[in-house]
Amino acid sequence: MVHTRRRFLMGMGALAGVALPVIGQATTTKPATPNATAEHAAPPQPKTLNADAMAAIGLLHSVYFWLKNPDSAADKASLIAGLQRLSAIPSVRSLQIGVPASTEQRDVVDNSFQVSELMMFDDVAGQNAYQVHPLHQQFVAECAHLWQRVVVFDSQLV
Amino acid sequence: MVHTRRRFLMGMGALAGVALPVIGQATTTKPATPNATAEHAAPPQPKTLNADAMAAIGLLHSVYFWLKNPDSAADKASLIAGLQRLSAIPSVRSLQIGVPASTEQRDVVDNSFQVSELMMFDDVAGQNAYQVHPLHQQFVAECAHLWQRVVVFDSQLV
Repeated sequence: MVHTRRRFLMGMGALAGVALPVIGQATTTKPATPNATAEHAAPPQPKTLNADAMAAIGLLHSVYFWLKNPDSAADKASLIAGLQRLSAIPSVRSLQIGVPASTEQRDVVDNSFQVSELMMFDDVAGQNAYQVHPLHQQFVAECAHLWQRVVVFDSQLV
Repeated sequence: MVHTRRRFLMGMGALAGVALPVIGQATTTKPATPNATAEHAAPPQPKTLNADAMAAIGLLHSVYFWLKNPDSAADKASLIAGLQRLSAIPSVRSLQIGVPASTEQRDVVDNSFQVSELMMFDDVAGQNAYQVHPLHQQFVAECAHLWQRVVVFDSQLV
């Protein structure tokens, strides 16, 4: 579970052109793949963003999943593991995976989902490349049975 | 409009303990406040995150707004300007503001909103502090008339 956040932070360290001082073990850069097949086992692409590349980030891709079995810890873990593998797709600049936070239950807060993901892309083209990437298609083929509903919000930064 | 992204990037530069090489003019750190009152004009708090602080980021606060007048460029600009002022709240670690991206119109994509915001917090306590902060309360008082619907997703990172 630590992987996702470390991955994101590594991208930001690369952004500044320096190694972050303390972000866990630098050698554990492979995603958690408990159910990995040979195809899954391909290591993620290194994120070598420099500051200019990170400044080009223009698109947030937020996805919320409602599981068919919302109380299944196994299904949730499978979905999270599947999402983690998506960080290997080159145009995915950062990946963060979450679950509903224990914030106040206000009327406007929707905490009915089970898993969320946030990806950053340079632009629409980067997101399009992600959609058709074999690893994404494999994720959909293998994990789509886990969810009953998915909602995507794509935001162009202003 | 450039402010928000620069603000976010500045936070990441601070994260690595270095100045980012090329992120616009370092002196233009004040938010765009075209309708600023004296209270609005307070400069944002500097974001001085170090790597340890950024590693503590654990909560994503995503908000989607549907305007009462969805075709009003003026209303959209007012809401965006209001959101930009929220970056001055200390517990807000990063702020990104967006509009619907021109990604493919798939069934799962909801592009019916007009404005989105993404904030990062250390934790639930940081988000709670934001909710009750006077600048946030002022934003709600001044901008709530602009939207007909708002949906919030709070994600705890895994």
